[in-house]
Amino acid sequence: MEERVYNFSAGPAMIAESVLKKAADELVCYPGRGMSVMEMSHRSSMYIEIFDRTKALLKELMNVPDDYEILFLQGGATLQFSAVPLNLLTTGKADYVDSGNFAHLAAEEARKYADVHIAASSREDTYTYVPDTFDWRPDADYAYITTNNTIYGTRYTAIPDTGKVPLVADMSSNILSEPFDVTKFGVIFAGAQKNIGPAGLCIVIVRRDLMGHEDPKCPKLMSWALESKNDSMLNTPNTYGIYMAGLGFEWLRDLGGVNAIYEQNKYKAGLLYDYLDQSTLFKAPARRDCRSLMNVTFVTGDADKDAAFVKYAAKNGLVNLKGHRSVGGMRASIYNAMPVEGVKKLVEVMKAFEKENA
Amino acid sequence: MEERVYNFSAGPAMIAESVLKKAADELVCYPGRGMSVMEMSHRSSMYIEIFDRTKALLKELMNVPDDYEILFLQGGATLQFSAVPLNLLTTGKADYVDSGNFAHLAAEEARKYADVHIAASSREDTYTYVPDTFDWRPDADYAYITTNNTIYGTRYTAIPDTGKVPLVADMSSNILSEPFDVTKFGVIFAGAQKNIGPAGLCIVIVRRDLMGHEDPKCPKLMSWALESKNDSMLNTPNTYGIYMAGLGFEWLRDLGGVNAIYEQNKYKAGLLYDYLDQSTLFKAPARRDCRSLMNVTFVTGDADKDAAFVKYAAKNGLVNLKGHRSVGGMRASIYNAMPVEGVKKLVEVMKAFEKENA
Repeated sequence: MEERVYNFSAGPAMIAESVLKKAADELVCYPGRGMSVMEMSHRSSMYIEIFDRTKALLKELMNVPDDYEILFLQGGATLQFSAVPLNLLTTGKADYVDSGNFAHLAAEEARKYADVHIAASSREDTYTYVPDTFDWRPDADYAYITTNNTIYGTRYTAIPDTGKVPLVADMSSNILSEPFDVTKFGVIFAGAQKNIGPAGLCIVIVRRDLMGHEDPKCPKLMSWALESKNDSMLNTPNTYGIYMAGLGFEWLRDLGGVNAIYEQNKYKAGLLYDYLDQSTLFKAPARRDCRSLMNVTFVTGDADKDAAFVKYAAKNGLVNLKGHRSVGGMRASIYNAMPVEGVKKLVEVMKAFEKENA
Repeated sequence: MEERVYNFSAGPAMIAESVLKKAADELVCYPGRGMSVMEMSHRSSMYIEIFDRTKALLKELMNVPDDYEILFLQGGATLQFSAVPLNLLTTGKADYVDSGNFAHLAAEEARKYADVHIAASSREDTYTYVPDTFDWRPDADYAYITTNNTIYGTRYTAIPDTGKVPLVADMSSNILSEPFDVTKFGVIFAGAQKNIGPAGLCIVIVRRDLMGHEDPKCPKLMSWALESKNDSMLNTPNTYGIYMAGLGFEWLRDLGGVNAIYEQNKYKAGLLYDYLDQSTLFKAPARRDCRSLMNVTFVTGDADKDAAFVKYAAKNGLVNLKGHRSVGGMRASIYNAMPVEGVKKLVEVMKAFEKENA
């Protein structure tokens, strides 16, 4: 078996090796079924069994109350940038926090449909922090946040209180990485390709009373109410992606669930931030009180040195450490499936590089 | 290795065993990359290589001219039911042929956005044939057909001439099964889960001059122009589904391409229709001149006997032969990846059942 690298990609990202091995073993024939999961009719009892188990696992892992629906959709978070206003607007007002690239794109997309108000923004400060004071409108149809900002490496450590206005959260880059109280949200959505499984799947968790108010011109497949009525099978869903998500959920449950992985994630991120805080070569640009546990950004302050480090790390089996093209520098994405050993190795390699470049 | 069944599901459907085996071998580590295809960043050179090869293979297999774009999208054909009017309407007029369940649903969805005119319909005749006379409007923005009707087992054997009005075709259930002259179409789209690969991927082939006229309220991810500008990566695409499609395209090319599979498909369907035409127990309801090569529908005329046959076949390793719930009876979906042996075995089993039930 070929040696696997430590892959610090921001997404698609690492998947636990045991999950991949199980998927490989079952790929040609799912045990006892004589066919691949990819070949199963989505309406067959053998597939529905996989689907129901996956949904139940996510409900258990996130402690999703019964008055919320869990949907397994396609189109990633970006399709939800449009689906959120198309499903939720009634008076036409929507409040957004502009805390990063994807938050900004979501607000821009909503302007097609809504009177968008920016309740808080860190855009002028190059998104180095997450706002903590907000100018919410009490009569908005919804309030929108992005719980973790993948590109800038920041996250909310406290969820804002929006009173009676339903809070919508894009959790693409930190769902299942720490405990979230689902009851604080009206809608949670997340692309799968960071903390859940392969790309091409988007999880939407929506409070049932918020469904059924979609715009008459909402594309049928984007209606949460219709998808809920059809248990995510208004048409053929991403059946294999859902199966892979299920294997990932099982892996997480067996590991001790969200509380256990949260401890591990704090430990992993801590290894990196502790080193960064005493390094004379590397600096972490994100404000200390809102550092992400999933995406650790750092810079040397010298673009050539940054590039040299990325190459140096790759030679040592640590790949995809280059920061997003819009910000440069480095980014270590250390989602749930990144082993502790990968982070330890990264710190070692950073130390060695620092020594060589002192 | 567990014995594989012959799976006659209408989709998701069989995938060639050699394709599945290759995918299983490469699942944990794509050769020389130290990671799974599922873990590759969609922006990485290693993934772009897979993407470009897949796109080039489809271009070659379907002989797609340079003035057409090939897009790899999400949301299945159903999302395209909305995307077609949202991208193509300028005057607001759209002509549809109502030749089956999905054709009907596409026209219903278009009514949200367009003045829809039904240019021909076989709905009153329970869709047992595909219309061959049409009342096209010369000033429509587009004309729409469904080249193969999965539920009823019918197909167009000649593509209608719509003059200067761009022809849009849903080819979900017979793309790559027979040669199509792409230049006759303005837009071709197809969900992957029948003749291409796993569910969760939708191929759109669109003439370049038809892009860029989308409705201002078209959800960003549904804009063909934006997706084209970003080479299907406006956001993270279904990276693994695209890889699987590529393996399927390689398999088809190595088999001799579309012309070769077309001969095989005619032979496979011929085995079934020849038997059905002389059977005293089974009848094929689809009109002879528009019989599908992909979905062969048949009935005994007695619901109990139909159910008994479906059970009998399953005992013999031939599964998912039950017809769609809206029509009953039986349906043998024999897409490209169904081996000739599977069809031969089905004919044998039908003969044995007929003998036992004479």
